[in-house]
Amino acid sequence: MSGFGEATAVERVGDGRYEIVLDAGYGIGGALNGGYLMAVLARAAVDASPHQHPVSTAADFHRVVKAGPARLVVDSRKEGRTAASSLVTLVQDDRPVVDALITTGTLDPATEPDYTAGPSVAMPPLEECTDVRPPSGAGDFADQVDMRFDRTTMGWLDGQPLGRPEIRAWFRHRCGHPFDAYSLALAVDALPPVALNLGAQGWAPTVELTWHMRAVPAPGWLAVHGTGRLLSGGWFDEEVEVWDTAGRLVAQSRQLARAPRPSA
Amino acid sequence: MSGFGEATAVERVGDGRYEIVLDAGYGIGGALNGGYLMAVLARAAVDASPHQHPVSTAADFHRVVKAGPARLVVDSRKEGRTAASSLVTLVQDDRPVVDALITTGTLDPATEPDYTAGPSVAMPPLEECTDVRPPSGAGDFADQVDMRFDRTTMGWLDGQPLGRPEIRAWFRHRCGHPFDAYSLALAVDALPPVALNLGAQGWAPTVELTWHMRAVPAPGWLAVHGTGRLLSGGWFDEEVEVWDTAGRLVAQSRQLARAPRPSA
Repeated sequence: MSGFGEATAVERVGDGRYEIVLDAGYGIGGALNGGYLMAVLARAAVDASPHQHPVSTAADFHRVVKAGPARLVVDSRKEGRTAASSLVTLVQDDRPVVDALITTGTLDPATEPDYTAGPSVAMPPLEECTDVRPPSGAGDFADQVDMRFDRTTMGWLDGQPLGRPEIRAWFRHRCGHPFDAYSLALAVDALPPVALNLGAQGWAPTVELTWHMRAVPAPGWLAVHGTGRLLSGGWFDEEVEVWDTAGRLVAQSRQLARAPRPSA
Repeated sequence: MSGFGEATAVERVGDGRYEIVLDAGYGIGGALNGGYLMAVLARAAVDASPHQHPVSTAADFHRVVKAGPARLVVDSRKEGRTAASSLVTLVQDDRPVVDALITTGTLDPATEPDYTAGPSVAMPPLEECTDVRPPSGAGDFADQVDMRFDRTTMGWLDGQPLGRPEIRAWFRHRCGHPFDAYSLALAVDALPPVALNLGAQGWAPTVELTWHMRAVPAPGWLAVHGTGRLLSGGWFDEEVEVWDTAGRLVAQSRQLARAPRPSA
């Protein structure tokens, strides 16, 4: 299978019922990336809805999801003129592995914001950023996603965590897929966990992630800004904002995740 | 019915099934407050769970909810040692009116944070803040919640919106109920919509709200900080952070809501 579009394509097999073969290319250490899974869920939700965009997705990640066959069930909860809401469940080995409440709506690409904040930190130019995860040829996540990192936020890689939960990167698909709503689902969960810059190490499973699509992205690289507010008792939050080349806030997310205890 | 504890008490009538008479005291203009409803949902979720706290709640608000009888259905989706997840549905007149994915866990009040940011803006002292919604005696929301507003964020009341989506206030229950996890559900949706400070007017219905409980609140007033990032095409986001008197970030939320077009 090649390309983000094909890897997230769901096949309708009945009323609110879909099937997919989940693509190993979006795995990290054997577990499929949460952003990839949210893209798949959103495609099913939009297919079953009268609207065009997944404006709100709130996902609970119950279990590790593996590459291979899975089913989706879209249970419509409310259909309105402006928005529709459904519960979308990803089922693997007959168990729910991800549940998401997804609200669809239709965003007009021509809309000018009435009010917008700017990014809290400017991204360094692309040419000053580093590709720390070049394609490995292993056919995993780093082969699908091209990210160029703000070096000031990558000290954790050399055993020198920043001391603040921040990671920033430029983002695009390696396959050349033009950015769409589903690309944004991938972008909000593509960064390494911001807790790495607090000395946390290893696997940091997402418990819950909510993201909102705020605008249709323009072509060109996306700037992905990750921050956080609190690491306590093994729980941390990660906020991601995604900005397009037109300077638009196109997506925003927060996730609650588990972190290994920081090393002293 | 008196007191927040009684107003949110759910009666277990079967396995994962609860009943409640929703309290008109938490209404604003005929619709019940979303924070009050999330408190009710969280009480059912925690009752049906092996854990003590609603660490993550993602709620879709489908329809206006009115005072009076309602049912709750708690559908367990995953039970784990650290966290358990369920879909909780509030049903009124045989229709789902609110759906929420709720993850429960148990937070230790003695935990010291490994990392914490501070509030981005300091709250003025309580005595410099204003009670703009004194109890009306009408038996509605202003009679239940005591809020003292940072005057610099209340220009919209006098037709002089700040131009930035910010509203801040001190918060407590008027009934004297000691702060608990459910108070935090109320606190994250108690402020007037931050879009009022962008010139928006009138009713701003919440479409989706996710909040995370981050710590057990200490006694004393809570500081509630509301901000936002984007108002575009009739959609706006509102972020709320809740800080306790011990300086702890006890809750954080984001909601996506609809706004009437700002007046020119």
